[in-house]
Amino acid sequence: MALSLCEKMAFEQGKTHSRLFPDGETYLRIDTPVQNRHCVVLADLSHPDDKYLPLVFLLATLREFGAASVGLVAPYLSYMRQDRRFIEGEALTSRIFARLLSAQIDWLVTVDPHLHRYHSLNEIYSVPTRVVQGAPLLADWLKGQTNLLLVGPDAESEQWLAEIAALSGHPFVIGSKTRHGDRDVVVTLPDLTRFYHHVAVIIDDVISSGQTILKCISALRLKGIQGIKCAGVHGIFADGIDAQLMSAGLDELVTTNTIVHRSNALDITDLLISPIGECIRLHETLA
Amino acid sequence: MALSLCEKMAFEQGKTHSRLFPDGETYLRIDTPVQNRHCVVLADLSHPDDKYLPLVFLLATLREFGAASVGLVAPYLSYMRQDRRFIEGEALTSRIFARLLSAQIDWLVTVDPHLHRYHSLNEIYSVPTRVVQGAPLLADWLKGQTNLLLVGPDAESEQWLAEIAALSGHPFVIGSKTRHGDRDVVVTLPDLTRFYHHVAVIIDDVISSGQTILKCISALRLKGIQGIKCAGVHGIFADGIDAQLMSAGLDELVTTNTIVHRSNALDITDLLISPIGECIRLHETLA
Repeated sequence: MALSLCEKMAFEQGKTHSRLFPDGETYLRIDTPVQNRHCVVLADLSHPDDKYLPLVFLLATLREFGAASVGLVAPYLSYMRQDRRFIEGEALTSRIFARLLSAQIDWLVTVDPHLHRYHSLNEIYSVPTRVVQGAPLLADWLKGQTNLLLVGPDAESEQWLAEIAALSGHPFVIGSKTRHGDRDVVVTLPDLTRFYHHVAVIIDDVISSGQTILKCISALRLKGIQGIKCAGVHGIFADGIDAQLMSAGLDELVTTNTIVHRSNALDITDLLISPIGECIRLHETLA
Repeated sequence: MALSLCEKMAFEQGKTHSRLFPDGETYLRIDTPVQNRHCVVLADLSHPDDKYLPLVFLLATLREFGAASVGLVAPYLSYMRQDRRFIEGEALTSRIFARLLSAQIDWLVTVDPHLHRYHSLNEIYSVPTRVVQGAPLLADWLKGQTNLLLVGPDAESEQWLAEIAALSGHPFVIGSKTRHGDRDVVVTLPDLTRFYHHVAVIIDDVISSGQTILKCISALRLKGIQGIKCAGVHGIFADGIDAQLMSAGLDELVTTNTIVHRSNALDITDLLISPIGECIRLHETLA
């Protein structure tokens, strides 16, 4: 993605060298001159804890070396889920993470952040942000297929799935999900009698523990649906759940390349170009 | 150590609950009321990258909940080694880490930080700091033994080892170390003929890759030394090197409990009490 972005935007691909010392500390060196240049950092923020400090070392050092601006392209934006205190005493990690990251960057571009109780990234990020929608990409992929039934596992995804269904011209149903724990969810589906001969495509924004998809596959099987596929924007796939999903009977598992994974069939790169350009121009206007 | 500190300082041991979500993000909850109370966070900062973000979530949330002060006791302080740019473009991680951490705390207590080119933590930490010396603890342990030769693997450790030798009443020698890579070091020792019947105790502040100690053991063996022990303040022991050190012929491997490890024979806890008290009182004076 970095190489492709550089080619398409006529950027130079900066060279950095990074490794772990034997004591577990990160070594980082920037081998490309950055003074007075706009720097765009492309970062994978899935499983973020061990990636955060090395990322901040890079961002801070780019600024130290006099970069004209330091922007962050995080195709998957982590720490968006804890958006309120469900139990007293809980750390509001979304807000803390956003504050920490905002202090290190001039702008942020991401794809389909998990905006549930926040209406916009601006509620927690203090820098300009641009959000790329993954829906059109999923819709394009669906458009090329016939006899599909789109399946959203929970009410939360209804609006989003309705948009994809409208764009791709397929019918859709929405299940209801009850979560009892990180890996303990129950998915119930409506009557599917009239879709008996359709291929079901389960669609979700983030596939993380994969339990929702797994339960959805079982529910579809119980309803007698034969062909089942799954498509997601962000494929985190904890604990090798992707293999489990396939062996549970998926015919196809498709994600965008916001997180590198063998299921990446949909390339989001082109959709990043315009917002990155906008952010750089905006920064020049403001500066 | 936390329990022991709480007992000795009449502190309440705060309860927190922390776990990883399946997507690799940290969940944190603070179950003890902290408003208007001085909070002391005891943190293991060895292998710091994946520990940093959860630590900051805790520190920031304590402040959010109205703690009177938030102090950090990091018996091992990480990111002290990259204290200059050896090659152009290198991230000065010591300075960045210190700046990031300083923003989250009111004071810092640590044990024998790796102060090489910095003369004091105040050069990089903007909050009050107190440094506990591990030397007296090592000296106490050495005092109880006879017929010892203390061995410092490199010139860097000379002043420190001279102090331990003076405190414990044992002779010492200093080797010379040449480092060719993270795990590629050469250690040369002076003539040891007159110490032929002594037990050598290799002493170092941080045992990390363990290669220095390993080479020192070989060098001592080549000189015909029979009994060899090793003592360090901070035992990081990368990649199970501790087992390798023992099988290379150490009779005993001893560290302080700044980092939890089975070699912890020397308890640093009592030495932390007075500097923690000082820092809290200092904060009250300043506030």
